[in-house]
Amino acid sequence: MATSVPTVEQLPADAALRLMAGVPVGRVVFTEGALPAIRPVHFLFDGADVVFRIMADQRLAAALHNTVVAFEADEYDAVDGTGWTATVTGHATRVDNVAEITRLDGLLPRPWGPEAVLFRVEAEIVTGRRVGY
Amino acid sequence: MATSVPTVEQLPADAALRLMAGVPVGRVVFTEGALPAIRPVHFLFDGADVVFRIMADQRLAAALHNTVVAFEADEYDAVDGTGWTATVTGHATRVDNVAEITRLDGLLPRPWGPEAVLFRVEAEIVTGRRVGY
Repeated sequence: MATSVPTVEQLPADAALRLMAGVPVGRVVFTEGALPAIRPVHFLFDGADVVFRIMADQRLAAALHNTVVAFEADEYDAVDGTGWTATVTGHATRVDNVAEITRLDGLLPRPWGPEAVLFRVEAEIVTGRRVGY
Repeated sequence: MATSVPTVEQLPADAALRLMAGVPVGRVVFTEGALPAIRPVHFLFDGADVVFRIMADQRLAAALHNTVVAFEADEYDAVDGTGWTATVTGHATRVDNVAEITRLDGLLPRPWGPEAVLFRVEAEIVTGRRVGY
C-alpha cells in the first residue's frame, strides 16, 4: 500500500444516497447563535427526504426550522485509510403532523432523551466523495 | 436493555478532548457560499489546538482562513445504541510557516490528494456529550 497513489473520487448522487442509507447515524450541520454547529442523530430516508430526530429545546428547534442545513454521513476504515462521505443539503422543516410523527418515530431507533423533535430535509443538493489509496 | 432509560450526559471539556484524541478522523464544519458545509479530515492535537489537513482549492482555503469553524468527532456503537460526540469551536487559520508545515505534515497520515492545506483551530469552546441506554 505504501507506494500506491491516494485518490479522491466524486460520487454520483444515487451512489452517495445509497451509501448514506446504509449507516445508522448521520450529522446535521447548521448555524446556532451565528456559530457553526453539528449534532449526530439517528436518521432514515422517507422517499427522497432525510428525516432525523434531534434532542432540541424550543430555541434549537426554532433555529433549525425553515433553514438550510447540511446532513452528512461517512465511514472510515482506519486500517487502510479509505472512506467515503456523503452530504445532503436542503431546507429543514419541523414535522408537526401527528400521523407523520407517529409513523416516522416508529421507524427510527428509540430517542436518546425526552426532548426529541423530528425534522425533514429536502435533498436539494447531494454530493459525495470516496477517498483512498 | 429494552427497559432501560436513554441518557444524555454532558461531558467536561477535558473528557471531550480526550475522546476526540482517540479517533483518526474528525469533521470540519464551516460555511461555503452561504451554505453549511462539512468535510471529514485527518487531524491531531498540537498542544491545545486542533490541526487538520484538508483537500482545498484556493477558494475553499480562503473561505476557511480566519473564520470560526466547528470541529467534531464522534463514535457510535450500533449494537447497543450508545455513543459520544465532541466539538471544538474556534478560529481557523491556515498554517503557512514552512517549518510548522513540515513538522505537522509528518505527524498526520498521508494526504488523500495533492491539494492539501493545513489549518489550525484554537479550541475556544469545547463541548461534548455521551448518549446511551
